[in-house]
Amino acid sequence: MIDVALFGAGRIGKIHAGNLARQPGVALKYVVDVNAAAASELAAKHGAKVASADHVFGDGAIKAVVIGSSTDTHAELIQRAAGAGKAVFCEKPVDLSLERARVCASAVAHARITCMIGFQRRFDPTFAALKKRLDQGEIGEPEMLVVTSRDPGAPPVDYIRVSGGIFKDMLIHDFDIFRWILDDEAVSVYATGSCLTDPAIAKAGDIDSTAVTIRTKKGRLAQINTSRRAAYGYDQRFEVLGSKGMLQAGNHTPTEVTAATAASVSRDKPEHFFLERYRVAYADEMAHFVEALAKGTAVRTTIEDGVKALELAEAATTSWREKRIVEL
Amino acid sequence: MIDVALFGAGRIGKIHAGNLARQPGVALKYVVDVNAAAASELAAKHGAKVASADHVFGDGAIKAVVIGSSTDTHAELIQRAAGAGKAVFCEKPVDLSLERARVCASAVAHARITCMIGFQRRFDPTFAALKKRLDQGEIGEPEMLVVTSRDPGAPPVDYIRVSGGIFKDMLIHDFDIFRWILDDEAVSVYATGSCLTDPAIAKAGDIDSTAVTIRTKKGRLAQINTSRRAAYGYDQRFEVLGSKGMLQAGNHTPTEVTAATAASVSRDKPEHFFLERYRVAYADEMAHFVEALAKGTAVRTTIEDGVKALELAEAATTSWREKRIVEL
Amino acid sequence: MIDVALFGAGRIGKIHAGNLARQPGVALKYVVDVNAAAASELAAKHGAKVASADHVFGDGAIKAVVIGSSTDTHAELIQRAAGAGKAVFCEKPVDLSLERARVCASAVAHARITCMIGFQRRFDPTFAALKKRLDQGEIGEPEMLVVTSRDPGAPPVDYIRVSGGIFKDMLIHDFDIFRWILDDEAVSVYATGSCLTDPAIAKAGDIDSTAVTIRTKKGRLAQINTSRRAAYGYDQRFEVLGSKGMLQAGNHTPTEVTAATAASVSRDKPEHFFLERYRVAYADEMAHFVEALAKGTAVRTTIEDGVKALELAEAATTSWREKRIVEL
Amino acid sequence: MIDVALFGAGRIGKIHAGNLARQPGVALKYVVDVNAAAASELAAKHGAKVASADHVFGDGAIKAVVIGSSTDTHAELIQRAAGAGKAVFCEKPVDLSLERARVCASAVAHARITCMIGFQRRFDPTFAALKKRLDQGEIGEPEMLVVTSRDPGAPPVDYIRVSGGIFKDMLIHDFDIFRWILDDEAVSVYATGSCLTDPAIAKAGDIDSTAVTIRTKKGRLAQINTSRRAAYGYDQRFEVLGSKGMLQAGNHTPTEVTAATAASVSRDKPEHFFLERYRVAYADEMAHFVEALAKGTAVRTTIEDGVKALELAEAATTSWREKRIVEL
Repeated sequence: MIDVALFGAGRIGKIHAGNLARQPGVALKYVVDVNAAAASELAAKHGAKVASADHVFGDGAIKAVVIGSSTDTHAELIQRAAGAGKAVFCEKPVDLSLERARVCASAVAHARITCMIGFQRRFDPTFAALKKRLDQGEIGEPEMLVVTSRDPGAPPVDYIRVSGGIFKDMLIHDFDIFRWILDDEAVSVYATGSCLTDPAIAKAGDIDSTAVTIRTKKGRLAQINTSRRAAYGYDQRFEVLGSKGMLQAGNHTPTEVTAATAASVSRDKPEHFFLERYRVAYADEMAHFVEALAKGTAVRTTIEDGVKALELAEAATTSWREKRIVEL
Repeated sequence: MIDVALFGAGRIGKIHAGNLARQPGVALKYVVDVNAAAASELAAKHGAKVASADHVFGDGAIKAVVIGSSTDTHAELIQRAAGAGKAVFCEKPVDLSLERARVCASAVAHARITCMIGFQRRFDPTFAALKKRLDQGEIGEPEMLVVTSRDPGAPPVDYIRVSGGIFKDMLIHDFDIFRWILDDEAVSVYATGSCLTDPAIAKAGDIDSTAVTIRTKKGRLAQINTSRRAAYGYDQRFEVLGSKGMLQAGNHTPTEVTAATAASVSRDKPEHFFLERYRVAYADEMAHFVEALAKGTAVRTTIEDGVKALELAEAATTSWREKRIVEL
Repeated sequence: MIDVALFGAGRIGKIHAGNLARQPGVALKYVVDVNAAAASELAAKHGAKVASADHVFGDGAIKAVVIGSSTDTHAELIQRAAGAGKAVFCEKPVDLSLERARVCASAVAHARITCMIGFQRRFDPTFAALKKRLDQGEIGEPEMLVVTSRDPGAPPVDYIRVSGGIFKDMLIHDFDIFRWILDDEAVSVYATGSCLTDPAIAKAGDIDSTAVTIRTKKGRLAQINTSRRAAYGYDQRFEVLGSKGMLQAGNHTPTEVTAATAASVSRDKPEHFFLERYRVAYADEMAHFVEALAKGTAVRTTIEDGVKALELAEAATTSWREKRIVEL
Repeated sequence: MIDVALFGAGRIGKIHAGNLARQPGVALKYVVDVNAAAASELAAKHGAKVASADHVFGDGAIKAVVIGSSTDTHAELIQRAAGAGKAVFCEKPVDLSLERARVCASAVAHARITCMIGFQRRFDPTFAALKKRLDQGEIGEPEMLVVTSRDPGAPPVDYIRVSGGIFKDMLIHDFDIFRWILDDEAVSVYATGSCLTDPAIAKAGDIDSTAVTIRTKKGRLAQINTSRRAAYGYDQRFEVLGSKGMLQAGNHTPTEVTAATAASVSRDKPEHFFLERYRVAYADEMAHFVEALAKGTAVRTTIEDGVKALELAEAATTSWREKRIVEL
């Protein structure tokens, strides 16, 4: 039995708690949250106890911590876990500061602990199947990647203000998709963007619509287009053009109903947002983490992946702000 | 140059005239219609002359007649053409009377003239491609056929009254599709139906919705469902299940636009009706007829096919009226 | 806490056990199976005990029994449950004998117990959403229903021999779909079929391909086409034509990957078979059963529904065997 | 009757000749080509005469010239037509030199002749329908445009060498789509690219894969991805994200056949190349040109549009070569 402590009893914390509960061989022992009521409720639901961080790191029986608390807590918790020799599963990003994320990665490497970053999209059934088929050579060598990544609506401006900006907050997932799918590293990043959906976002110093282009070492090309608002729901698609064809990952829909009327032939909108679309992905990434702990195998999304995605987010932010191509 | 006369200057006559005009090596010499104004207009458009039937059959230079006039004129015109040794292209049905259709077929066989029946669906690009792939063995032996055939709306009740009933008027095309696709003959027919869209159709002694099942000599099964009304337009689909898979023929749409909004993800309705959907099919069947004349080759949809489809329509009518399975 | 006993530790029994385990407020207390090893294993997995039927029915704490054992055990278990005043969830069919099924229904009515029949398809997200939209009037009055229901492959002939025949074993689900979707009752049934996939099925006195047509009291029409073999997987579609349009329920696929190569543009085959396709439906029907017990509300798929579907299956069998239309 | 002369009897010249022949009120009088045999054959087919450019421009009866000859002849022919007061339909590009294209535009403006550039994509049924619906406000204000434009295979390297480079030769159409769809002008262009399909293209000083980003005056964003090679055929898609939804233009396919087998569920590849995909567009643009001449109305794709698209192509070429963002 692997004893685990969970940091964060919010939306994503609940997802992780539920997924941990479904894993055989795992016991959720502690829930930690500054919001005591939320911590109590979640702990009660899964037969865990509320605890402080100090208590968690002082309990030698705890083998792993799952970090789903706010971004500004990630780095410190990772470093404490490294110090205590506990395995870590941490939500993205490692930190908003690239510098600090690198320090965390060093601590992890030095302590030789397992540290998995929650890039759940790699575990999405559609994305994972596409990647597998790409690796099997179904479309030959990949040449171009086009990523469409749009949220149904923007988060509150208060959140945007502390989010690190759209590139670190939202596109960090797309940057990870880019690295994973093309299996290549960026040599240059060009990013531009606009505030088109809500002037309050511009006032907060951010944008809501972006267009990013990345060139890789092998000369491959990637384009990412992003918006904080898609009236039709969460739009999560990408396509890879290869020497022998193309693989496309489409959206998931709640049902397979088609309606044909005098007006049109219509189908469902995509699943509403990330909790629906990535429900299976969240379950599968946690199963992967637990399996890695149980078997002592490597995790697929490491803290190095977290640092690399953050490097791209920082380069994109610079490109956008300074209106220049950033070489890496 | 092959000189041709056209009977019928109505909706379908215009289509045939236009398609004849596009064929090299063909001259539309005469247009015949009881409506003198329509005949004149169509003749003028294509540089032809208005003529009487007697004149057409007396003109030895006329090699072929295209019959697009009303159903009650078909049989006599086919017989006169046979007598005069002229090739025939005739719209379906040969006649509403199976007996009389057989007499026509005998006359055609005796005179050894080419006689093609206008089962244009066999020339539809989608249907023809499906048939070709089926014949190439892509899905092994065919086992079941499901045909969906729905009009956007019913014709005037005055027309329905003289139409011969829905099985002879509308399903005759589907019966031909059945024979062509399964390459097999019926041993029993069961048909039922209802009047669901307009009570006036029932008053006229007809129905507007049908469900037909056919068993073949080889034990294959076919189901046809038909309605005089589909709010979303002309619905012309079929699918064949075979031992190694399935081939489906879908509807054609005017454009490939998809709209995603807060309401739904929608696409075009099917092309509105037969003039749109079978535009290419009408052109291709006429090109096939002209090529057969020029090269002396056989036509793909013979008067025997017309008789066989009519036999099925009559069997279905009997099955529906007498509430029994009809053996053939 | 509702204590439940499960009969049957086979494939479907495992599904139900797992779904019961996920319901709060339910305890799986006993597992009963003639296969002692299977019963032990499943009981152990869910913290239950192995027991005999006598023990289950003698335990007053058991509030409900879930019957997933072989078909020949259903009727007796339902009757014993009725006698003991325990609620019942029973897999379809109630019994292969219509007479005996009616006796069970009487026993249930007399004892006033809840008895739900496992027509899980009504709980499928796609089918349930379609039904809801139909009831909301999105396509007006329903007129025609076309059901396509094909298995990826036939079960062993030994099973077919005791299955009651394809209409009772396989189409019983489709007959329930028919009644549920059209919300109407049959007045006549015509069924025909062939053995096209494996001569051993014919030797066992059964067929593997069927075509069924049903007329309803309101004059609506339904066609069902079925095969024991679809090379491309489990094909579970239906469409309803209504006065204002059409609703179609399509297949579910494992992923939303599209591959475009020099050969074709391809997508996933449908989910392989019923355990995959109806995974959510099985969970949702059990949640519904448990909720009905907890709240004392009615279940959506009653034993009367089970009897009615069996009546249709028997009528279809007679129609096929005697080559006649069966009036109901 | 409008007398027209055609320059160029090659692939595109034949298309235009055929489309001119189908227009009532137009007579193709002359065909001009340095290849005498090609000119003779095409002229004979349409009842025209072979002539020299001098003869054409000296014939006062000629009202319009259609220029489908090689790119290096366009500018001179436009200028001569302007001098002779004849209307012009000219294939893209106006010229490879932006300077010279501007001179042509001035000549056209000065002579007040009609001059239409062959941006046939605006006349494609799918693209035109999308644009109309966008203009009707179906998705609110447009915000982002993503264009995917891929050829089935690269032209001969000899052609590439004199083509002006991929941006002027291939993307010029996409730049026109950008201006037309967003109804806005570029303020900056970033373009990058690689040679990934054939090293001979790099040797010829060109690339085969590009990624372009354009910012507009209104802050809108456009991304274009292009390849000279798509194994699955001609890929011509774009999508517009607006404040209220998205409109997508998909590929056209030869048929609507779907095949489901043990391997996959597959559909047709897109129509093979531009002659197939834009067959209707070529016909419709010529009908539009002729109608504009007959009615004296304005043409939809002017020489100014040709100059603007060329400006973008030149900016993109500079951006790629000099690895910098180009401001306009």
